[in-house]
Amino acid sequence: MNGSGLAPETRARLIQACGTIVGRQGVITAPDELRVYECDALTFYRRSMPDLVVLPTSTQQVAALVRVCHDAGVPVVPRGAGTGLSGGAIPTAGGVMIVLTRMIRILDVDPVNRTATVEAGCVNLWLTKAAERFGLFYAPDPASQSACTIGGNVAENAGGPHCLKYGVTTNHVLGATVVLPDGEVVRLGAKVADAPGYDLLGVFVGAEGTLGICTEVTVRLLPQPEAVKTTLAIFRSIEDASNAVSGIIARGIIPVAMELMDRETVKAVEANVKAGYPLDAGAVLLIELDGPRAEIEAEAMGVEAICRAQGSLDVRVAQSEGERALLWKGRKEAAGSFGRIAQHYYLQDAVIPRTKLPQVVREIEEIGARYGIRIANVAHAGDGNVHPMICVDSHIPDCEARAKSAASEIMRRCIQAGGTVTGEHGIGLEKREYLRLMYSPADLEAMQRVRRVLDPRGLCNPGKIFPDDPPTGRDPSHPEPPGGEG
Amino acid sequence: MNGSGLAPETRARLIQACGTIVGRQGVITAPDELRVYECDALTFYRRSMPDLVVLPTSTQQVAALVRVCHDAGVPVVPRGAGTGLSGGAIPTAGGVMIVLTRMIRILDVDPVNRTATVEAGCVNLWLTKAAERFGLFYAPDPASQSACTIGGNVAENAGGPHCLKYGVTTNHVLGATVVLPDGEVVRLGAKVADAPGYDLLGVFVGAEGTLGICTEVTVRLLPQPEAVKTTLAIFRSIEDASNAVSGIIARGIIPVAMELMDRETVKAVEANVKAGYPLDAGAVLLIELDGPRAEIEAEAMGVEAICRAQGSLDVRVAQSEGERALLWKGRKEAAGSFGRIAQHYYLQDAVIPRTKLPQVVREIEEIGARYGIRIANVAHAGDGNVHPMICVDSHIPDCEARAKSAASEIMRRCIQAGGTVTGEHGIGLEKREYLRLMYSPADLEAMQRVRRVLDPRGLCNPGKIFPDDPPTGRDPSHPEPPGGEG
Repeated sequence: MNGSGLAPETRARLIQACGTIVGRQGVITAPDELRVYECDALTFYRRSMPDLVVLPTSTQQVAALVRVCHDAGVPVVPRGAGTGLSGGAIPTAGGVMIVLTRMIRILDVDPVNRTATVEAGCVNLWLTKAAERFGLFYAPDPASQSACTIGGNVAENAGGPHCLKYGVTTNHVLGATVVLPDGEVVRLGAKVADAPGYDLLGVFVGAEGTLGICTEVTVRLLPQPEAVKTTLAIFRSIEDASNAVSGIIARGIIPVAMELMDRETVKAVEANVKAGYPLDAGAVLLIELDGPRAEIEAEAMGVEAICRAQGSLDVRVAQSEGERALLWKGRKEAAGSFGRIAQHYYLQDAVIPRTKLPQVVREIEEIGARYGIRIANVAHAGDGNVHPMICVDSHIPDCEARAKSAASEIMRRCIQAGGTVTGEHGIGLEKREYLRLMYSPADLEAMQRVRRVLDPRGLCNPGKIFPDDPPTGRDPSHPEPPGGEG
Repeated sequence: MNGSGLAPETRARLIQACGTIVGRQGVITAPDELRVYECDALTFYRRSMPDLVVLPTSTQQVAALVRVCHDAGVPVVPRGAGTGLSGGAIPTAGGVMIVLTRMIRILDVDPVNRTATVEAGCVNLWLTKAAERFGLFYAPDPASQSACTIGGNVAENAGGPHCLKYGVTTNHVLGATVVLPDGEVVRLGAKVADAPGYDLLGVFVGAEGTLGICTEVTVRLLPQPEAVKTTLAIFRSIEDASNAVSGIIARGIIPVAMELMDRETVKAVEANVKAGYPLDAGAVLLIELDGPRAEIEAEAMGVEAICRAQGSLDVRVAQSEGERALLWKGRKEAAGSFGRIAQHYYLQDAVIPRTKLPQVVREIEEIGARYGIRIANVAHAGDGNVHPMICVDSHIPDCEARAKSAASEIMRRCIQAGGTVTGEHGIGLEKREYLRLMYSPADLEAMQRVRRVLDPRGLCNPGKIFPDDPPTGRDPSHPEPPGGEG
C-alpha cells in the first residue's frame, strides 16, 4: 500500500514522467524494493512506504523531478543514506522519494582557499579522505560518517564528537545549490563565508528537506592538526566527571572531543568491544586534544590536573595509535553495544547547559527507575549534548509505550534545564511536539511563514519539524497562492 | 522636509502615539535635532530626514512603536550608533526612526556557559569590558567598536580584524529577541548554539532591519588568550605580501589578524600617527597571533620564516605593549589618516579569494590611474576582505562622479574574481545594485519572498539590500495579504 493513496493511473503517470527524466533504471517501483525506504534509522517509531523512489544523477534531473511532483500535487521526500535518527526521511504520506545516492561526485577540492564542493550524495568520510591528500579534513564527524551523506548532514545539521571544538555542519557550509519546492534552482551562499543578502543558506541547513532539496554543497576544510592526544579519565560519579568537564572549559582548554559515558554504558561496551574501560567506574570521560604538539602537551597536563582535582580515580593517556583507536572504538560502538544487550534501544538527543549535566543525568536515572527501564547515558559532554539510550526490552510489559513516555519526560526535563531537544539529530517526525515547549506560537509562526512562502502547498517532506504540518501537504488538489493561509 | 511626505496631521498623530509609549522626552521632532539622523557613516552618498525619532527603553516599547507604524502604514527605520558604512540606517523615505541607544543594559554575563545577554543598544566595547572581569572577551571588533552597538553589529553582520580567526558577528550570536514587522515579539535561537527548527536567527543577522528590530542579543564569549604577539613585516610589493599571507594560512597558522596596507596607506599613516611604518615599503603586513605562549612562539618563528622566504625586507616583532599599541594605532587610524590628506574618502568593502589579492590590487591601481584619482588599499588580507579607500579630492573635476564610477568598477572586478561585494559593512543603500551581478533573479526572489512574508507591506527599513525594494514600502495605503506579489 502506498501512503498517499495515489490513484493507480496517477502513479503510473508519475512513474512514466520520472522515467523520462532519469531513465527507467533510475525508478524503483516494486513493493519489496520500496520496503527499504519505509524508514530511516529511526526504525522504532513509524514506517511508511513511498509510492516510488527515483535516483537522479544531476541537479537538472532533481529540478525536473520536483517540478513534476509540484505540478501533480504529490509529496516529495529527499533521502541520503537513510542514517537519520529522527525520522526526517520517513515518507509519512508516501509520494515520490528522491534518493541522492547516485550524486556522489567530489567536484572540487581547493587546498589554497580550503574549500571542497561535492554532490549531495557524497559520503561524509569520502570527503575527508579526499581532503587528506592536501593535509586537510572536514570537521563534522557523525557516528555514521562512513555511510551518511553530506546532503543528509546539511538537512539535519549533523554534528559529531569533534563538533565541540569545530562546530556542527552549519559552521562548515559555505554554499549550496538548492532545488526549491517549485523546481527553481538557486545558489545559496558563496565560496567565501558570509555572502551578502539574507542568509538563506543558514535556514536551509537543518530544514530537513522541507524547503527544497540540496544537490551540491561547498564546505570549508580545516588543516589537519600537528598532533592528537587522547586521554581516558575515570571517575566515581557522573557529578565528578561533569565538574571536570566544566573545569576544563573554564580553564580555556577546548578539546576536540569530551565524551562522557556512564556506568551502564561502560558495562555494555566492555561486554562487547573490551575497550579497556574499568567496570567499577561511575563514569568515564574520553578527552581528545588536537593542535600543535607543544600546545597539547601543556593542555594535557592541565586536563589531568583538573580531572584529579575533581576526584578522578585514574587518568590514562593513550600511548600508541592502537590504544587510541581502541578507546574510540568503545565510544563509537556504545550504541551498538547496547543493541546487543537489549532488543531495541531508543537513542535520544538533547542539549543542556553543561553546568546542568549532573542534575539532568540524575533526573534521567530517576525517570528510568520510575518506568522500570534501563537508560544509559552517553554525552558529548563539552557542549552539553546528551544522548540517553533507552532500552526497549520486550520481556517488560508495554515496553515500547514506557520507552516513549520516558523519552518524553527526559525531553521535558532538558527543556526545563534551559536546553533544546536536539543537538545533531534534527526534529524530523519524532521531536515535533516538543517544539511547542521551546517556542511560543509566534516563534513557530515566524518559521512556518518561511515554509509557507517557499512551499505554499507543503509538498516538500510534509509532516516534518512543525507539530501541525499536515503529513500530506496542504490540499494538493487546490493549490493556493504563495503565502496564503495554509 | 520629511522624506515620506507624511501629512502634518498624520505626523502629529504619530508623535502623540509614540509619546504615549515612550514618554514625550523620548520623541525627537525638531528639524535641527532630526538632522543628526539624516545619514549614518556613509555620509557621501545620500541624506534623508526621518519624520520623527523615538528612543524606546524596552522591548515592549519597541513592539508598541512598530505596531503603531504598521497600523499607520509608515516606514520604520532602526538605528544603533549610526556608524554603519553602507547607508543601512539612512531613512530614505522618512518615517519613524527607532534609535536603540537608550537600551544599553548588560543583562547577564554567564562565565561558566560563556554567554552574555545585552540590550541592542549596548556598545560593542562595553560588552568586552564586562567580559574581561571573567577572563573572557567578545570577538567581533569593528574599527568603530568604541561607539557601535551590538544591535547594529547584528543588523550588518559586522566584522573586524580579529574575525580572521574568530569569524564575524553571525558566528557569535546564539539568540535574539526580535520585534517582527507587525509588532509581534519572537525569540530566535537559544542560549545554546544551533537551536532546533529553522535557523531564522541566521537570516536575521545581516538583514539590516528589513525583517524587524532586534532588542536583546545573547552572544558567546571566548576565553582571553594567554599571550599575544604582534609582528610587522615589510615588503617590496603587494604581491610579495599577498604570497606571504597565503603561505602562512597554507602552513596551518591562523593569526587573529593579518592586516595589509599598501604604499599609499603607509604614507598617509606616517604623515599622521607615525606608527613606525617604513615609507619606502611597497606594502606592510601587521600580523597578530594569540593563544598559549608556547604555541605562538613557535608560530611567530614560522610566520617570520615564511615572510622572509617571500622576500620580506624586514620582520619586526613588537617588544613591548607600547610598541604593539603603536603598530595597531597606525592600522586603526588608516582611514582617519586618509581623511587628513583628502577632502573625503569613500571606503569600500569586498571579499575576494585570498589567492586573487595581487591581481585585484593591481586592477584597483589601474582603475585609479584611469580615473586620475588616488586609491589606497587596506585589507583584512587573511580572509581576502579588501577595503580600497578612494580619495575624493574636490580640486579634481567631477571627483564625486569619478569616485562612484571607480568604486563600481572595483566591485565588478571583485565579483569577477569570485568574490562578494561586502565582507562586513553590509549592502544597505550603497551596494544594492551589485546583488544583481552576484545572484540570479531566482536567488534574489528566494530572499525577497522571505522579506515579503515577514514584512508584506515592506515598511521595515524600506529600500535596503534589494535593488528593487521600493524606498517607501509597498503601497502602504492598500495592505496586501502576506506573501502576495509586491
